[in-house]
Amino acid sequence: MRKGPVIAIHNRVVCLASRPSGRLVPDHFAIVDAEVPPLAPGEVLIRNTWLSIDPSIRLRLSAATPSGYLPPLTPGDPLVGLALGTVVESQSPGFAAGELVSHMFGYRDYAVVADGGETLGGAGSLTKIDPGEFAPQWYLGPLGSAGLTAYVGLFEILELKPNDVLWVSAAAGAVGSIAVQLAILRGNTVVASAGSPEKVDYLRNVLGVSHAIDYRAGDLKTQLAEAVPNGIDAYFDNVGGDHLGAALDHLRPGGRVAMCGAVSTYDTDSPEPGPPNLFQITAKYLQLRGFRAGSYDHLYADMRSEVGTHLADGAMTYEESIYSGLEQAPSALVGMLNGRNTGKTLCRLD
Amino acid sequence: MRKGPVIAIHNRVVCLASRPSGRLVPDHFAIVDAEVPPLAPGEVLIRNTWLSIDPSIRLRLSAATPSGYLPPLTPGDPLVGLALGTVVESQSPGFAAGELVSHMFGYRDYAVVADGGETLGGAGSLTKIDPGEFAPQWYLGPLGSAGLTAYVGLFEILELKPNDVLWVSAAAGAVGSIAVQLAILRGNTVVASAGSPEKVDYLRNVLGVSHAIDYRAGDLKTQLAEAVPNGIDAYFDNVGGDHLGAALDHLRPGGRVAMCGAVSTYDTDSPEPGPPNLFQITAKYLQLRGFRAGSYDHLYADMRSEVGTHLADGAMTYEESIYSGLEQAPSALVGMLNGRNTGKTLCRLD
Repeated sequence: MRKGPVIAIHNRVVCLASRPSGRLVPDHFAIVDAEVPPLAPGEVLIRNTWLSIDPSIRLRLSAATPSGYLPPLTPGDPLVGLALGTVVESQSPGFAAGELVSHMFGYRDYAVVADGGETLGGAGSLTKIDPGEFAPQWYLGPLGSAGLTAYVGLFEILELKPNDVLWVSAAAGAVGSIAVQLAILRGNTVVASAGSPEKVDYLRNVLGVSHAIDYRAGDLKTQLAEAVPNGIDAYFDNVGGDHLGAALDHLRPGGRVAMCGAVSTYDTDSPEPGPPNLFQITAKYLQLRGFRAGSYDHLYADMRSEVGTHLADGAMTYEESIYSGLEQAPSALVGMLNGRNTGKTLCRLD
Repeated sequence: MRKGPVIAIHNRVVCLASRPSGRLVPDHFAIVDAEVPPLAPGEVLIRNTWLSIDPSIRLRLSAATPSGYLPPLTPGDPLVGLALGTVVESQSPGFAAGELVSHMFGYRDYAVVADGGETLGGAGSLTKIDPGEFAPQWYLGPLGSAGLTAYVGLFEILELKPNDVLWVSAAAGAVGSIAVQLAILRGNTVVASAGSPEKVDYLRNVLGVSHAIDYRAGDLKTQLAEAVPNGIDAYFDNVGGDHLGAALDHLRPGGRVAMCGAVSTYDTDSPEPGPPNLFQITAKYLQLRGFRAGSYDHLYADMRSEVGTHLADGAMTYEESIYSGLEQAPSALVGMLNGRNTGKTLCRLD
């Protein structure tokens, strides 16, 4: 029971209004008024403050999702996504009003979340955050899911070795920009690709990448071959499609691919065919491994130690594209899927 | 120098006559008369007796091969392929007349081969064979490259575990039929697919497969789901294309794919696009590994011990589709690529 006067909390939730056919636009969403129900035992009421905009939610807006993936949303359903917020009221002994927490019920002003209840992988469970010296929203970015994804992809999946030549695609994005910097700081040669001159400038002059490619400025395979004529050993794939095809052609024998995401394939209802050169996997005995960071929560401490040190001493930088207000969340998602944003896309909710 | 009277050896070689555009037919080849040059030091003259017909040679008949693969042949070039033969004359201290050897210069009656010279992976180097109790041509099949490929794919690449549900495609073929039997003998549940009712009958009634699928008899994904409704853990891919796509849909989370070959994609000059569901690799954190048995010569002894024991005690069987005479080699290759042969395709040359 809430203490003090009974206050009606006005809540708003971003819902799927209609299923996109083809590319997503903000009109596929509606901001819907909602009630905040009384808390059941074990539940916590949270005022969301930061919403993480992640491309993979697009998959759940189509009528069918890949088998083994989360089920599709139905028009009328609220969206879900990683968020930070402040506990307003708690019926859980583990959480107290005023505490900063992360959870999966973003895309709304207020969320009622069960402690240890419905989760979406470890990162999605209700978790207390102590931001320490860092901006709190970095726990949705370089010190959160994006940081863990970059860290796991490089060191667990690719098992990056000191002399590996690494290619990172969508390198100006939330995950890519961390992966690029971590690999450079470990001494690797890094090729980084993105989709605009501004992003390439960011890769070169802010992240310090020696080989930066604008994949829209010319043939990707040709640009790769010019950047690193002797091939690559490892590819951190955030894009899929023709990027994966270019990697298969340009990987050296024994090369590895970390398949983190395939943003080029999300914003459609009719999946594109894969690249025609999959036989390269056999011919060059390549290894492709898909992964989701949610299975690697035990590495949060290691990741935060390495990334946190670099962020604190200025060796690593992190850019954010911030939208303001829940009503901007649909535009934030569409903007990110269209490649308009650099760094982590966030929506500020407080 | 040859001892005894100088005899002119009439030799014939299968050469590429013209590059196929689309599907291969026997007329793309010519049987060409050739001379046998005098032996240089270190060389051995071999009368070939058995030729292994392997699908991957088709890749080298197109104008371009996958990067990292062997280069294309040019019209006029002799074909190459694994063969068995008897040493006729030797200028090498390691080989004597009358010995049985394997080497890469098949597709001809006589071959001049350097000891430790030009090879095509370890399996292609000039190697003495002691057939012991087994038919000599089995050293091109279950006790040779095909056996090693099956063994490596199952135990090194897929790391097959006791309770894994395994799918093997092209299961009535040279490699597939060994893989299927090895896995059954280790106690695994095996789904096996092939492309005709006769092959399915062979899988069921000769190899003892409990779940056999004719992929031409209906939708492959539907048949897989009916055979093993709870999914598969491991897929031994000899086919590529839609078979790989079906596997990606039907693999359980964490599943593995050994990419041994992609025979469905070889017999064309315009490679087909890959399956549209590669995102499954990320969604279900799958692992795909290409391999070539040539990198695993150190496992020949282990493989021959396991496969040889099973063949000797009758627990394992092996079928051969044998063509007679060098002039039949083109038809043998075309027949195999068109899925007409069961078991190992061989051409008998003596």
